[in-house]
Amino acid sequence: MRPRGRAHNEARVRAFRGIAPRCDDRGMDAPNRSAPAFLFDLDGTLVDSVYQHVIAWRDALEEVGIDLPVWKIHRRIGMSGGLFLNQLAREVEGVLDPEVIAALPGLHTDAFIRRFDSVRPLPGAGELLATLSAHDVPWAIATSGPERYARRSLEVLGLPAETPLITRDQVRYAKPDPDLFLTAAERIGADVTASVVVGDSVWDLLAARRARALGIGLLSGGYGREELVFSGAYRVYEDPRDLLAHLDEVGVRRPL
Amino acid sequence: MRPRGRAHNEARVRAFRGIAPRCDDRGMDAPNRSAPAFLFDLDGTLVDSVYQHVIAWRDALEEVGIDLPVWKIHRRIGMSGGLFLNQLAREVEGVLDPEVIAALPGLHTDAFIRRFDSVRPLPGAGELLATLSAHDVPWAIATSGPERYARRSLEVLGLPAETPLITRDQVRYAKPDPDLFLTAAERIGADVTASVVVGDSVWDLLAARRARALGIGLLSGGYGREELVFSGAYRVYEDPRDLLAHLDEVGVRRPL
Repeated sequence: MRPRGRAHNEARVRAFRGIAPRCDDRGMDAPNRSAPAFLFDLDGTLVDSVYQHVIAWRDALEEVGIDLPVWKIHRRIGMSGGLFLNQLAREVEGVLDPEVIAALPGLHTDAFIRRFDSVRPLPGAGELLATLSAHDVPWAIATSGPERYARRSLEVLGLPAETPLITRDQVRYAKPDPDLFLTAAERIGADVTASVVVGDSVWDLLAARRARALGIGLLSGGYGREELVFSGAYRVYEDPRDLLAHLDEVGVRRPL
Repeated sequence: MRPRGRAHNEARVRAFRGIAPRCDDRGMDAPNRSAPAFLFDLDGTLVDSVYQHVIAWRDALEEVGIDLPVWKIHRRIGMSGGLFLNQLAREVEGVLDPEVIAALPGLHTDAFIRRFDSVRPLPGAGELLATLSAHDVPWAIATSGPERYARRSLEVLGLPAETPLITRDQVRYAKPDPDLFLTAAERIGADVTASVVVGDSVWDLLAARRARALGIGLLSGGYGREELVFSGAYRVYEDPRDLLAHLDEVGVRRPL
């Protein structure tokens, strides 16, 4: 803590005297002047797959005799499967068999894969990523889902296999823990505190805050605008196409 | 307008003098002292069927080659099918064939009926209606859907065939026009301005305001709380069970 505190105090003194900050003056809370990197969620943010996930979870839960209202499933898409099941176990009346809980993620994945043929890119997703690349803005994808179907979404988006992709399998904790976005930033050599997290769910935005990144919400996963703002989004757009049309608002310079 | 104006002025004078209002003093804008009647939406409010409707519309649109992001379908469930298709025709790039538009409602209904087996009552729905009946609170159901599948939802809820049910077929305009709720109030002999509309969608709440009823929003259709508040809900609950637990807040007296 000592060195950080001293650097921080030095920075305050320099700021007070009107002296420009030195590069190494930046403490944890210092504003960041570099152009942001973009860390994207996948389902509901780049591909239109949230409602297929919802119905797949509903099918999986019904297979084991659990009747959970569908909107409550919807509101948990994108969070860590383990946390989802923990919450579920507390909420469902009666005791859940540990074997049943262990079987659910597999049943959900199977049910989702069966519906995968109907998954499409969200409007503007490919164009947005291509535009960032064309302007040398680093970006990566970080998803609470397993690699098994995240790879298939990359194909739907027409992205190459070497696209920076962090999946559930690569971190200890999924969203709303910050690990996925922290690892994604590291993978592309970006400072996470200078990064923008783009996601459709409350879990993306909570993870963004814990990672000390800025969060941009997209409505394309079916959350309401205010839910995303109240979860910490500093800006909300409809979908990737709408974000692309407003990149100038969020730190991407594209000279005419 | 004359008689209404005179009654209204008389009521103001009586109120100014501290005289209790007479029964016939009530103008359109006068507060209403009678216990409210309840006018319920059906899908997403009493039965857990919104996501099946969403997927059914997606299937129907895909059958005719229209690729609409699923969240945009979700946000239109519960509105008049005709208005939905008008909006769609404006939004979809390229010209929509009138024959295609005419075929869509039937395709949607077929796709919904195919998924109907997975429709369940929402938690507390039956108990809420039984409690209102037990306390002599009049209630009716008013849905933008056709009688064909609304009747099936009554069966899911275990309600008798003579339940007051207003469907799309019985009015000229569906939600967000007020006709369904106005007709529902008439059917049960209730004053709509003394009624409470209970619905899960923005369209229910807009129709409630146009009917000069009070709107209660339920989260069980997948809208966010703030979307419902900003659409005019004077109170929002999770689902029928949550409303039942809070009936005391909205004008239903249940002495212990």
